[in-house]
Amino acid sequence: MEIYDKIKVYADFFNHEIIKFLSKIEPGILREASLHLIKSGGKRLRPFILSKIAEYYGVDIKDSIPAAIAVELIHNFSLIHDDIMDNDQFRHGVKTVHVEYGIPYAILAGDTLFSLAFNSLLNLRRKFPERIVRKAVQELAETTYKLSVGQGYDMFLPSTNFFNYKLYYKTIINKTASLYEASCVIGAVLGKASSKDIKNIRMFARNSGLAFQIYDDILGVFGDEKLTGKPVGNDIREGKRTLIVIYAIKKSNSQLKEKILKVLGNKNASEEEIREVIDYLKKINSYDYALKKAIYYNEKAKKYAEKLPKDLAKFLFEFSDFLVKRRF
Amino acid sequence: MEIYDKIKVYADFFNHEIIKFLSKIEPGILREASLHLIKSGGKRLRPFILSKIAEYYGVDIKDSIPAAIAVELIHNFSLIHDDIMDNDQFRHGVKTVHVEYGIPYAILAGDTLFSLAFNSLLNLRRKFPERIVRKAVQELAETTYKLSVGQGYDMFLPSTNFFNYKLYYKTIINKTASLYEASCVIGAVLGKASSKDIKNIRMFARNSGLAFQIYDDILGVFGDEKLTGKPVGNDIREGKRTLIVIYAIKKSNSQLKEKILKVLGNKNASEEEIREVIDYLKKINSYDYALKKAIYYNEKAKKYAEKLPKDLAKFLFEFSDFLVKRRF
Repeated sequence: MEIYDKIKVYADFFNHEIIKFLSKIEPGILREASLHLIKSGGKRLRPFILSKIAEYYGVDIKDSIPAAIAVELIHNFSLIHDDIMDNDQFRHGVKTVHVEYGIPYAILAGDTLFSLAFNSLLNLRRKFPERIVRKAVQELAETTYKLSVGQGYDMFLPSTNFFNYKLYYKTIINKTASLYEASCVIGAVLGKASSKDIKNIRMFARNSGLAFQIYDDILGVFGDEKLTGKPVGNDIREGKRTLIVIYAIKKSNSQLKEKILKVLGNKNASEEEIREVIDYLKKINSYDYALKKAIYYNEKAKKYAEKLPKDLAKFLFEFSDFLVKRRF
Repeated sequence: MEIYDKIKVYADFFNHEIIKFLSKIEPGILREASLHLIKSGGKRLRPFILSKIAEYYGVDIKDSIPAAIAVELIHNFSLIHDDIMDNDQFRHGVKTVHVEYGIPYAILAGDTLFSLAFNSLLNLRRKFPERIVRKAVQELAETTYKLSVGQGYDMFLPSTNFFNYKLYYKTIINKTASLYEASCVIGAVLGKASSKDIKNIRMFARNSGLAFQIYDDILGVFGDEKLTGKPVGNDIREGKRTLIVIYAIKKSNSQLKEKILKVLGNKNASEEEIREVIDYLKKINSYDYALKKAIYYNEKAKKYAEKLPKDLAKFLFEFSDFLVKRRF
């Protein structure tokens, strides 16, 4: 079975479990708001990778369900709150939760999923020893803090004059890579993997997550509107401090730099101005630079995977390639 | 030392620890937003009761700090988010976080405190066995879900025709009593109290919390503006389904019922209309009814406290009386 087909089979399975777990939420309107985004779709990649890694270490998929649900709920909590903060109107082709239910219920739906993630995770205690449960909880708790830090920088940086590679990597390590990393690590923790294996799995996931996000950033600037579902140059209009923009600012003379800064984060910039900046970015090789970095981190991820048991390594190779290529 | 003086001493101690713990938050603007409400004051009643109960079971106050910080952070997270949802402009005499920093940073500040609460709680592992840590985490996780349910009903009920004692108690058991209950229970869990003691402490706290909230509701309708800091009849204007209003609706004939419903939740109601409803509520003994209930639950709380070790029972008597009387 191709990895994409495997993912689909698992997604159906997890959807059933997640919806069952959330059916207890009350009052009803809060339950509906909490389920809105989940029911709109999604590949459940975090539950998938968590359960698959646990499986490679001998854990029955049924036993990893509480953890798989937990990482997906945290993912959805952060999407719901991020959509309010970023004032996004659509996701997965449906209205965002705050557009459909209003900001108060959207905030509360996010909080509900956040708390239920930890409640779900604690259900691991029925099958796993206290220390394993605590380690999983700790991994998830540390990650939820990282998500806040990442979103904090993502919101803060566009209002500054900082164009800094280090802050870029800090943002995406926290905002994107961390929950993917936690999903992989929790899978390994449930499987009682050695601390050496856990470290390699962590570094695999972090680098694979970086590669994924850099590809995503490339799409956000150069991507086809029909494929990304977002207006061309969306990240330019929002003033995002992506690798592409940082590289361009560093490589341009002061005149060209000023030209970029005039458009970057300018909500009133015309289509033509945006298009002009994108053409310029391509011309000075921002695209090539970012693509090279994405490939670099994907290869780096694989180097860590190589140190793991052969079957697991093979699977992680496949998964990382799938992750970074799936939207091209 | 009087209990009020004890609380003040502990509050200074906890403030120091909380601010130290939060000083690592980045970026800076997120740290400031997260600290805004905490720095505006507060009695730190939840850390106080948690650490005091743990102390009665022989736990050094230093060892309970991670848990004391955790319950206070959850309290502040819920205040910040509730203030956005309820559109409140002031708290503790200062602007609410979303008024001062905008809704995006306020949502994120709440999320940050939520996540750091669990991170703090996990620091217990340095001094306590895995099972105790897991029990504390579980108690807090269950409570964060209850807070969502309580806030859900609090938001939902004013938009309905429900006047129902059961839903009132459900709302306040979840929204107010649960975190107080969790604070007391976690204190006992750290002290390795017997499951019988833990059960009595839980029931003490739940009933004491109910008494506190019913008193608070009385103040929200009949309270002196100068003491409560909120406009007279604020809860009437907001349409809150308090015990006072439920009793009145059940006791009134259809004509008087209609009169109340015309004003309840009506943001445009005049001062005079509000005043008229308040006078009527007093006349039909809503005030007396609610006061009787508050006294009943405070006494019920004490009945559970009586089953505990004598010194602890005496302290809990004092604390519960302080709680319900402090704002009169």
